[in-house]
Amino acid sequence: MKFDLTPPKGTKDIASDQAKKLWKIIETCKQVFESFGFEPLFTPAFEKFEILSAKGGLGEAVKEEIYYFKDKAGRELGLRFDLTMPLARFVSANPQIPKPFKRYAIAPVWRYDNPQRLRYREFWQADIDIVGSSSILADVECLACVCEVLNKLEIKNFKIRVNNRVLIENLLKPYAGNKIKQVFRIIDKLDKIGEECVKKELEEIDINSEKIMEIITMDISEINQKGKEEIEKLFELASFYGIEKFLKIDLSLVRGLDYYTSLVYEIYIEKENLSFGGGGRYDNLIEILSSRKIPATGISLGITRLMEILSNDFFKKQRKLKFLVTVLENSMLKYYIEICKAIRDQGFICEFDVMERNLRKQLDYANSKAFDFVIFFGKKEKEKNVIKLRNMQTGEEKEIPFQDIRCLSKYIS
Amino acid sequence: MKFDLTPPKGTKDIASDQAKKLWKIIETCKQVFESFGFEPLFTPAFEKFEILSAKGGLGEAVKEEIYYFKDKAGRELGLRFDLTMPLARFVSANPQIPKPFKRYAIAPVWRYDNPQRLRYREFWQADIDIVGSSSILADVECLACVCEVLNKLEIKNFKIRVNNRVLIENLLKPYAGNKIKQVFRIIDKLDKIGEECVKKELEEIDINSEKIMEIITMDISEINQKGKEEIEKLFELASFYGIEKFLKIDLSLVRGLDYYTSLVYEIYIEKENLSFGGGGRYDNLIEILSSRKIPATGISLGITRLMEILSNDFFKKQRKLKFLVTVLENSMLKYYIEICKAIRDQGFICEFDVMERNLRKQLDYANSKAFDFVIFFGKKEKEKNVIKLRNMQTGEEKEIPFQDIRCLSKYIS
Repeated sequence: MKFDLTPPKGTKDIASDQAKKLWKIIETCKQVFESFGFEPLFTPAFEKFEILSAKGGLGEAVKEEIYYFKDKAGRELGLRFDLTMPLARFVSANPQIPKPFKRYAIAPVWRYDNPQRLRYREFWQADIDIVGSSSILADVECLACVCEVLNKLEIKNFKIRVNNRVLIENLLKPYAGNKIKQVFRIIDKLDKIGEECVKKELEEIDINSEKIMEIITMDISEINQKGKEEIEKLFELASFYGIEKFLKIDLSLVRGLDYYTSLVYEIYIEKENLSFGGGGRYDNLIEILSSRKIPATGISLGITRLMEILSNDFFKKQRKLKFLVTVLENSMLKYYIEICKAIRDQGFICEFDVMERNLRKQLDYANSKAFDFVIFFGKKEKEKNVIKLRNMQTGEEKEIPFQDIRCLSKYIS
Repeated sequence: MKFDLTPPKGTKDIASDQAKKLWKIIETCKQVFESFGFEPLFTPAFEKFEILSAKGGLGEAVKEEIYYFKDKAGRELGLRFDLTMPLARFVSANPQIPKPFKRYAIAPVWRYDNPQRLRYREFWQADIDIVGSSSILADVECLACVCEVLNKLEIKNFKIRVNNRVLIENLLKPYAGNKIKQVFRIIDKLDKIGEECVKKELEEIDINSEKIMEIITMDISEINQKGKEEIEKLFELASFYGIEKFLKIDLSLVRGLDYYTSLVYEIYIEKENLSFGGGGRYDNLIEILSSRKIPATGISLGITRLMEILSNDFFKKQRKLKFLVTVLENSMLKYYIEICKAIRDQGFICEFDVMERNLRKQLDYANSKAFDFVIFFGKKEKEKNVIKLRNMQTGEEKEIPFQDIRCLSKYIS
């Protein structure tokens, strides 16, 4: 029988070290998010299509960008394209939740995008959002929380671009008029298509491209406009957290989605100009679903991308020691199982051979899977009441008293 | 604007304490699975339809039981209905992986089932599988690992039904003949529809129902048949792990899917007869996809159900202490942020008010969200260089030196 065994187009299997990195990121996000008082929320992988199409006024057009399908009763559904829309639905459906509602979600999302390097149709996001507060304190709390995650993961050289939709709208209005949303969508492509192409696209809709480029590269100190004071307040509060060093004003940052209402952010690696997250304030989104006006702000980390960025050094430092207990005598399985249990109880990883194979093959396996230590316990060792511990890095062997398998740490410094 | 804000039919949002329980289960599974040497694998939420339909020989009929859709290029896809099929595809596509390949996966799966109590169309599974070993050692390792998870979660009264497909097939063949698979599917419904209905269904296909019922309720000690010795070996090895007390032979256990080849298990809560997991050996599944015969065995825990079973007491014992730093003076934000950071660094959960509201409302929030401690730091406290700590359970208040926010433990015994 012949099958095409590759995963569906635009998706991938995440295995071995990459999978462990992704888990490490998930765990770190969870731990830091919770320490800031964010609480978990799980929503279904798919939503009613009417909910998905309500966002950003895209309507039916969103169908082209998502996985759309019907269930067997003909209900229109779609895989979620982000974690913000499900949050907005949940908050709208549960108006009684105490505010601020600080929720986190770590989960995959799906977009019907053109697959390319580091751009997949299925990817993981880690989101935090604060619903119910219109204070910049909420914005900064989200930024500080994300910086803490990145610091814990020892991500170096990251920066967060900051802009204010109100400010840039005020600056561009005289030149963009009622084409402001179109202009935003074009500027948003600056990183992807470059300055020349952006200029060309602006000219195609009869916008003075020189003027636009001039404005979005202005130094903010020359500006005196509504929205600037929010950025200044943001920087002041950020300095209390010690995170102002990561922030960088960038008037060219508008972000694609229409629903941002004031401060917007984009997180990126400076050296490679690789974006891996972003967010901002969206004070009108929940109103679209529930006709209740509830302010909200949040940030999303693209953790599939973060997985590619995470250094191997950091990852290796974090990993747990791995022990293999060899099976030398089938009649002594009872002891091997006892030894495994004792080692696992100390927080280490421990396997024993479940293949009933000879010692040589067991040691091949230990090498192929990078075990740190191998343990031997045969008839001779049993008589002497010791186990033999081999360090697979150095080759050094030690005999240690059998009862000391419960305190291995002192032998493996 | 009016929207139906409920999640799609058969799915649900998992929020607040339920969401925290689910995370606790996920974390515990992950930690125990890894200690046994299982490694993570993430596969996409959807698979090519041809892969999904290859399993269990269901073919096109599986379309009725899953979420089936096409992408925009007309490719046939389906949301995964379990985590075993994606594993089989991965192993088939990556024949070079060292064996045994011990992988875990913790993720949602989707079935187009009739929603009812504790039966959803989206639910989470936590799977472990050992690929490449035909030894019963691999089966027992999986069972022991699952028992360790359930012990860590303090799940009481669980049992694991054990049977052997080979044994029950040998026993039933004389009476079921070539209708054996039909008979299996009917017996599999025993828990759901009861003995009378099972008998009726058996008679409808001209099977001696009395005889079948007699066999599947036999005591195994009276039997001398092929397959029995595997069960006996399983119990012997289980006793080395100390888990034989959880196992219970049940000749009526056949499990719905055709692809199990020998030992099969079902995990359930004895008192309520509520099943929340199962598995078994499937030595032929990978061959269907890759024409390579690779033995495999595994167990799946239904962790959405486990979430409903998890006791509140256990959960409360596990939770971290929550602190609220009240905002008394806007000019002192810097200190509040410093206090929060110090408390978070000690592993506690800490929030401060990001709503710019008065003290009364801050305390209402602390009550509604069950904070354990509230911290006050106003002008008076600043002068005295202390913070005031209120225990929200007892109402007791303490003044503690400002610098001692870095070692709160000694004040909150």
